[in-house]
Amino acid sequence: MAEDTQGKVITCKAAVAWNPTNLFPLKMLKLRHHKPGEVRIKILYTALCHTDAYTWSGQDPEGLFPCILGHEAAGIVESVGEGVREVQPGDHVIPCYQAECRECKFCKSGKTNLCGKVRAATGVGVMMTDRQSRFSVNGNLSSTSWELRHLVNTLLFMMLVWQKLIHKLLWTKCAFWVVVYPLVLSCLEHAKVEPGSNVAIFGLGTVGLAVAEGAKTAGASRIIGIDIDPKKFDVAKNFGVNEFVNPNDHDKPIQQVLVDLTDGGVDYSFECIGKVSVMRAALECCHKGWGTSVIVGVAASGQEISTRPFQLVTGRVWKGTAFGGFKSRTQVPWLVDKYMNKEIKVDEYITHNMTLLEINEAFDLMHEGGCLRCVLSLH
Amino acid sequence: MAEDTQGKVITCKAAVAWNPTNLFPLKMLKLRHHKPGEVRIKILYTALCHTDAYTWSGQDPEGLFPCILGHEAAGIVESVGEGVREVQPGDHVIPCYQAECRECKFCKSGKTNLCGKVRAATGVGVMMTDRQSRFSVNGNLSSTSWELRHLVNTLLFMMLVWQKLIHKLLWTKCAFWVVVYPLVLSCLEHAKVEPGSNVAIFGLGTVGLAVAEGAKTAGASRIIGIDIDPKKFDVAKNFGVNEFVNPNDHDKPIQQVLVDLTDGGVDYSFECIGKVSVMRAALECCHKGWGTSVIVGVAASGQEISTRPFQLVTGRVWKGTAFGGFKSRTQVPWLVDKYMNKEIKVDEYITHNMTLLEINEAFDLMHEGGCLRCVLSLH
Repeated sequence: MAEDTQGKVITCKAAVAWNPTNLFPLKMLKLRHHKPGEVRIKILYTALCHTDAYTWSGQDPEGLFPCILGHEAAGIVESVGEGVREVQPGDHVIPCYQAECRECKFCKSGKTNLCGKVRAATGVGVMMTDRQSRFSVNGNLSSTSWELRHLVNTLLFMMLVWQKLIHKLLWTKCAFWVVVYPLVLSCLEHAKVEPGSNVAIFGLGTVGLAVAEGAKTAGASRIIGIDIDPKKFDVAKNFGVNEFVNPNDHDKPIQQVLVDLTDGGVDYSFECIGKVSVMRAALECCHKGWGTSVIVGVAASGQEISTRPFQLVTGRVWKGTAFGGFKSRTQVPWLVDKYMNKEIKVDEYITHNMTLLEINEAFDLMHEGGCLRCVLSLH
Repeated sequence: MAEDTQGKVITCKAAVAWNPTNLFPLKMLKLRHHKPGEVRIKILYTALCHTDAYTWSGQDPEGLFPCILGHEAAGIVESVGEGVREVQPGDHVIPCYQAECRECKFCKSGKTNLCGKVRAATGVGVMMTDRQSRFSVNGNLSSTSWELRHLVNTLLFMMLVWQKLIHKLLWTKCAFWVVVYPLVLSCLEHAKVEPGSNVAIFGLGTVGLAVAEGAKTAGASRIIGIDIDPKKFDVAKNFGVNEFVNPNDHDKPIQQVLVDLTDGGVDYSFECIGKVSVMRAALECCHKGWGTSVIVGVAASGQEISTRPFQLVTGRVWKGTAFGGFKSRTQVPWLVDKYMNKEIKVDEYITHNMTLLEINEAFDLMHEGGCLRCVLSLH
């Protein structure tokens, strides 16, 4: 494959979001060849996430229409641009939304996983190399027609990414876990949950369950899951949640319910929904003196969190995590080992398998709440 | 003295706040003898703080009128109640607003300096032992007349405190530094400012200067002081501040000014004013990925801080400190040693010395801004 297509424009199929109300018909796109440092990947599987639905809704300021959704994928390298040394055609890889260039101030700091190099380009859906798109919707190859915004948007059959967004894998079934798994680690590495801790997890979707698994691994004794959908409680038991609270069962604010339940509040809380009112509750249910609340969910654009400063002055800490505080290229091999040794769950998160043609049904399933991850096959 | 008064009701003078508009005439009060575990102290010096002015203003929900203000004092033990072993009559001591009982969940946690034992009593101005006041305004000793709320309120000539609020000293000139000094430590211990860091300090009053001194001791390279009163800049140089920003000199929001000035934001920021809008600016001027903002100032009751959750998700940490995260009884001896070895500034904070009779002038001085600490002599 690589020899036939190397350096050439190719045609590929993708699901394109035209606008917030439009469905995703399969569309043929032109995909330009790579520039130096870029890698072209044949996508095999992509999982859907609520962030995709958020972008499609038009609320996401970074979702510029028309665009290709998707950011939890795995595939095989089709061809590589000049200067790419870490992967070669045929490698099984994950294109990840979190880069690690190892050159910028952020990567060198040793304090954060947030690479500073690609955001300016990824935020507007173009390639870092030349701030241009590589996709054409209409097939016209003049420079102005390469209009379709992209970057880590994997609901397509072939994509181009910068080499430092790529993780080499031994395995391609589905890579969504590389996106989810850092959330598990956020309990261990980022929030430093200690053995015997009380942990509250707001929202028992995939993200909340991954955090619960991390809390269990860290040795937390009480792992309290909070959700308004009691159907999620049975599933959550398998991921380490050992107590359940449904806010709808209580008249008091949920933070007060949790403070009462835990003799003063929890040691750690994680907001895994993306609602600012829940973020406040998650902070305020923390124990005075040391409780730490971590925002994991992504709130809608323009919304704000608030609380009384007294909450912080009396010892609570408010922080957040993107990608679980996890260095993507450096720590992926460790994650792969964990999976290979069956130390972390992966298959348990995949509740549905479908094809790209069934993407509308897949989104419906996600909104209904009975789906953790639906993996779409693209081959 | 102790032998004459031990176990007896005594009469003493105090400055009493009758209501938010009333001045503080010197008033004779009756002070009951101590109960078990309590210590009666002859106050020698008290410094004024903006928190006293806040309580007097009537905005403080914990300021119940009539009340005795003051919380930065030093004195000599006059007599002790049953079971008091750590101090004896004649000891030089500091009555401190931050207790350390060493028995409660908080003290035993090793994670916080916030003792959980006395707040329920101190918050309503009564003694912990029996939830009663020990002061009478009108001199009537019937139980219902012991109405004057107190606890760590030191603008009086004799006071009673629970023994675990007391620090033994070698020196009684003025103890306000025990209140201020933990703020210095907050840079070292609580926020863990590292050598070479960039630090922004909002508000260059006594608290801000103490934080600057702490940042300097920790080895911070850029210590940026932010204040709308440029007169404070000269003084601040002596405490380690080496750059100055006056928000009134800029059209841009102050957080953006600081982000631009520091190539992406500061490593640590401290809010030392108590304004919620400044607390937001202090968080948002922090560097993405690792910037930590510490709220030190006390906001008016009911006010709320807010920001976009994105600020935290991208790696900033929002925390606060009460008493600098400093364990009062355990760490005071270390502070005293530091002072004795001239390793920390104390005298430099005392800009004015007056008597209790001049308390109105002292408050005026404080509001005018030319005063760091005014120490009132009470003997």
